[in-house]
Amino acid sequence: MTEQPLVGVVMGSDSDWPVMEAAAQALDEFAVPYEVDVVSAHRMPQDMVDYGRSAAERGLRVVVAGAGGAAHLPGMLAAVTPLPVIGVPVPLAHLDGLDSLLSIVQMPAGVPVATVSVGGARNAGLLAVRVLATSDGELGARLRADMVRFQEDLRRQAQAKGE
Amino acid sequence: MTEQPLVGVVMGSDSDWPVMEAAAQALDEFAVPYEVDVVSAHRMPQDMVDYGRSAAERGLRVVVAGAGGAAHLPGMLAAVTPLPVIGVPVPLAHLDGLDSLLSIVQMPAGVPVATVSVGGARNAGLLAVRVLATSDGELGARLRADMVRFQEDLRRQAQAKGE
Amino acid sequence: MTEQPLVGVVMGSDSDWPVMEAAAQALDEFAVPYEVDVVSAHRMPQDMVDYGRSAAERGLRVVVAGAGGAAHLPGMLAAVTPLPVIGVPVPLAHLDGLDSLLSIVQMPAGVPVATVSVGGARNAGLLAVRVLATSDGELGARLRADMVRFQEDLRRQAQAKGE
Amino acid sequence: MTEQPLVGVVMGSDSDWPVMEAAAQALDEFAVPYEVDVVSAHRMPQDMVDYGRSAAERGLRVVVAGAGGAAHLPGMLAAVTPLPVIGVPVPLAHLDGLDSLLSIVQMPAGVPVATVSVGGARNAGLLAVRVLATSDGELGARLRADMVRFQEDLRRQAQAKGE
Amino acid sequence: MTEQPLVGVVMGSDSDWPVMEAAAQALDEFAVPYEVDVVSAHRMPQDMVDYGRSAAERGLRVVVAGAGGAAHLPGMLAAVTPLPVIGVPVPLAHLDGLDSLLSIVQMPAGVPVATVSVGGARNAGLLAVRVLATSDGELGARLRADMVRFQEDLRRQAQAKGE
Amino acid sequence: MTEQPLVGVVMGSDSDWPVMEAAAQALDEFAVPYEVDVVSAHRMPQDMVDYGRSAAERGLRVVVAGAGGAAHLPGMLAAVTPLPVIGVPVPLAHLDGLDSLLSIVQMPAGVPVATVSVGGARNAGLLAVRVLATSDGELGARLRADMVRFQEDLRRQAQAKGE
Amino acid sequence: MTEQPLVGVVMGSDSDWPVMEAAAQALDEFAVPYEVDVVSAHRMPQDMVDYGRSAAERGLRVVVAGAGGAAHLPGMLAAVTPLPVIGVPVPLAHLDGLDSLLSIVQMPAGVPVATVSVGGARNAGLLAVRVLATSDGELGARLRADMVRFQEDLRRQAQAKGE
Amino acid sequence: MTEQPLVGVVMGSDSDWPVMEAAAQALDEFAVPYEVDVVSAHRMPQDMVDYGRSAAERGLRVVVAGAGGAAHLPGMLAAVTPLPVIGVPVPLAHLDGLDSLLSIVQMPAGVPVATVSVGGARNAGLLAVRVLATSDGELGARLRADMVRFQEDLRRQAQAKGE
Repeated sequence: MTEQPLVGVVMGSDSDWPVMEAAAQALDEFAVPYEVDVVSAHRMPQDMVDYGRSAAERGLRVVVAGAGGAAHLPGMLAAVTPLPVIGVPVPLAHLDGLDSLLSIVQMPAGVPVATVSVGGARNAGLLAVRVLATSDGELGARLRADMVRFQEDLRRQAQAKGE
Repeated sequence: MTEQPLVGVVMGSDSDWPVMEAAAQALDEFAVPYEVDVVSAHRMPQDMVDYGRSAAERGLRVVVAGAGGAAHLPGMLAAVTPLPVIGVPVPLAHLDGLDSLLSIVQMPAGVPVATVSVGGARNAGLLAVRVLATSDGELGARLRADMVRFQEDLRRQAQAKGE
Repeated sequence: MTEQPLVGVVMGSDSDWPVMEAAAQALDEFAVPYEVDVVSAHRMPQDMVDYGRSAAERGLRVVVAGAGGAAHLPGMLAAVTPLPVIGVPVPLAHLDGLDSLLSIVQMPAGVPVATVSVGGARNAGLLAVRVLATSDGELGARLRADMVRFQEDLRRQAQAKGE
Repeated sequence: MTEQPLVGVVMGSDSDWPVMEAAAQALDEFAVPYEVDVVSAHRMPQDMVDYGRSAAERGLRVVVAGAGGAAHLPGMLAAVTPLPVIGVPVPLAHLDGLDSLLSIVQMPAGVPVATVSVGGARNAGLLAVRVLATSDGELGARLRADMVRFQEDLRRQAQAKGE
Repeated sequence: MTEQPLVGVVMGSDSDWPVMEAAAQALDEFAVPYEVDVVSAHRMPQDMVDYGRSAAERGLRVVVAGAGGAAHLPGMLAAVTPLPVIGVPVPLAHLDGLDSLLSIVQMPAGVPVATVSVGGARNAGLLAVRVLATSDGELGARLRADMVRFQEDLRRQAQAKGE
Repeated sequence: MTEQPLVGVVMGSDSDWPVMEAAAQALDEFAVPYEVDVVSAHRMPQDMVDYGRSAAERGLRVVVAGAGGAAHLPGMLAAVTPLPVIGVPVPLAHLDGLDSLLSIVQMPAGVPVATVSVGGARNAGLLAVRVLATSDGELGARLRADMVRFQEDLRRQAQAKGE
Repeated sequence: MTEQPLVGVVMGSDSDWPVMEAAAQALDEFAVPYEVDVVSAHRMPQDMVDYGRSAAERGLRVVVAGAGGAAHLPGMLAAVTPLPVIGVPVPLAHLDGLDSLLSIVQMPAGVPVATVSVGGARNAGLLAVRVLATSDGELGARLRADMVRFQEDLRRQAQAKGE
Repeated sequence: MTEQPLVGVVMGSDSDWPVMEAAAQALDEFAVPYEVDVVSAHRMPQDMVDYGRSAAERGLRVVVAGAGGAAHLPGMLAAVTPLPVIGVPVPLAHLDGLDSLLSIVQMPAGVPVATVSVGGARNAGLLAVRVLATSDGELGARLRADMVRFQEDLRRQAQAKGE
């Protein structure tokens, strides 16, 4: 992908990729350029801080971050970037992702994380598209139109299944 | 407020206002024009659908929706608008907002809601600002600068408390 | 089935059918005519509203609605029809249906949903029969007699298993 | 009340009355005749069985049962009557009604209880009205009309609050 | 078994047997005579009441009752017999037995159920033995001695595993 | 009380007494002699082991043990005595007694604790009475008769409340 | 305190002090020198990283960190220091500290946090003492002796309460 | 291993070994001598007390204890030794380790257990290393250096996965 990435898709471990892949796929469907990285809050904390700090100036507009267990990555990135950060609770072997969900969503006042459902990486990608679609200019206009079409498709497919 | 509202702050019941007020206050701090409405998914469902459907064309760019219990408002609005919808779980007398949280965050693939913490209306407002700050043009530039300043203030205040 | 359907069995996605099928089967056992539809609150919201609004005038007397995750379908239908709506929490891959249960049962005052157990579609069908059996006239009389026989059968079978 | 009661409102203990009163009030609003009793599954089990067994022949068409903790009353009544039983989880001093909710809603296949929200007695009353409104004849017709008016009122009040 | 049964082992459904079998086995190890029955609180309520009412006069001294979901059997039996009732929460397909546990343990003041762990039928059998061992006479003396030996065996086996 | 105590009522801390008092009161109502002690598993572990080990030979027949949080007292006593141990989960400032309940009830195979509801000390006392009532001889006969009367009283009081 | 601090007691917000104070008090009782700081993972992330990174070389041997909600502070500090980090889940207005507990304890392999109970700051201080008492030299010897005395006192006090 | 063990790794049952093995492996990686034992709080309570009481004088400096269900082993050991005790909640067939977690972490004031994540035995081993690394002398110095290298390795591996 040679275009400037607009969305950074990051995860705490490469084992999160089977879940997080769906975020990348949603961005592909809307032809939104993105980058993918493993950035562990716990194993490479300074790199994580640096990633977040430089995200805006590197041209990213949204960050999508997935993590499991004591999932600190989305919240820590939200603390070091002014960009909107979308958090995906990744379910691990125990507790069904409830720990990840609470660790991501229960952020203190001042530092929001836009949390989606347990394992909801596809929705994280779609939410990134909705955010980018709010902007002025050509990109926003194209994505707004695409999102309207996408919602019509959702409806058509749901209806088709009911017939 | 005579300016075009950019954020729609809605809630399922006027009893949610003591919680949701903090979203409006955060938008005020960033001088983001907004509108406030009571739009009950359950008591005025068609009005709710109409509100969501017209939100984009009325000039809104982000919707912040708070609800308690079987909190359907954020998800239903997300289903009828292409705009990003930020959901605030409002805690009621029982279950400490866990029901609201799960009802808002566990959306099916295709229809994301950007969920914040239980009672986290201030963060919903700040997240709306972050979303608007991603856009091109003057508004985006101003909000990006303001958000950086805001984060510096957060740090200064936190540090001051530690001294 | 050429008779006027009395029960509408609806679900948010065709993937809910393996669970919801048991509701249809219970209605078959009592020879109660019904219709089955996929009506997604989130992917086809206006169709869902229209379905609910027209349910009574199309001759339905009870609606059985199943949904998973942030399960909004039963509650939204209850908001747009005066008919009794029976909600079935469908368990998904995570959280064991607890999210669906809370999203369906915790409805605000004014808009009840008659909730059954996680995955309890058979009971939803039986509850619809009990509701129809309360009515005057031939149908009610037949179903009351059938329900008494059904309960005797339950007892006989349970006893037989114990021997 | 000299009319034949159509709804039996029962509870496990007189201490449940502050919660259950709202069911009676909803029935009053729709002029549905009802009876109120304390019928404890645990302290007077045979009376409870007798109450349930005679409910239909005494002319009741719906039973509304509230109980807290290991709330067995709604399910046991559902086991001894063919009538629809509506269960209200009453919250006690600990666990916020989650125990009552699960004890009422998780009924085995064959014996449904129409469960409403924790403390949701008003909705239990309204659900009883919806059930009675499905029936043929004068009562059904009047209640159907009343329920439509009630829903219009809900909408008007919600809208008024938003203005 | 021709001896007078001292323990009644009952369960709500024959599908509970794979769990409940371990209670019977524990009683066998202590040579305590027992009877096994399927007695469903929900499908054969009057039989269940009759079983409980006659338990003491039929010579039973302890009842062990297992049930899943909205597990009413142990509590209802405790309501109709003065004997100690030991409840075993049987885990079903969803919610991991938490619903059964709360439905059994959260009994109201006046009607205790001696609850053991989720799926803990072996401990239910052992608890029945401990209860019988409190009694005067030959049986009590034998069981007290056996229980002491059993605990020594437990220790020996645990130690052996550690070597 | 000069009679030989038959029940040992123990608790982890004297702050548990306001909850545990109800167990003693129930024993008083049935004129069952008992002793009361503070025996902390965590603060006086060897004393606790000694208490449990000597319980049977000191003439106790049942132990009632209450504890909060990581409530180890009932389970540890059950490990060092062959007597039936009844556990009372005492609710503390957080988590509503759910931690105490799970810590008491989820005992491993081999070492049962007869667990009652959160804060259910009265039922613990009544369960001790039921256990003692299973025994042969005069005490058992008296307690069986008393328990039958007690259950009749429960019924009369519940009925009176309903009138 | 002019001595070299050995324990760093930090918290995410000065509003955590009423809870965290008990850690400092425990350290005072053992005459262990410590420092106290507000170090917010979310509001001053780089300062937090710097605090953790320099902790060991500044002479600290243990860090005690308290935080509420999406409590990232203990885990992030554990990621940037080789010292043992003790985490205290601080309960906030909703969810009773369960979110804080899971956010602190569910750390990924490689980065442990020694977690204590919800609100358990006193135990965090005592655990720090136990850690320091493992070391060679004069400090370790003194603390080992003090800890033995402390445990004897605990026992004496508990016993005294039981008399 | 002929060296003096510094860490005692114990578990309630040999069936916990597949989980607890990871603690031993972490200690091996840091060349910390340890001993492994099965010490059941419930099946061999006096042995458990003796193990804990003699731990310090036998030269152990840290105890790592794993247990499932009503997991009393870590807390009971902490009650009888002045050493730091690290508790590992072992997940069993039901409740996903939540019962073990609460039973281990919710210790009363005075008796701390350093709790790690559900199934987090590797982190328990690493935490033991961090504790030993706080001590003076050669061992501490070596482990501090090793832990710094270990954290650098973690970072390198995480980074490598991201490339």
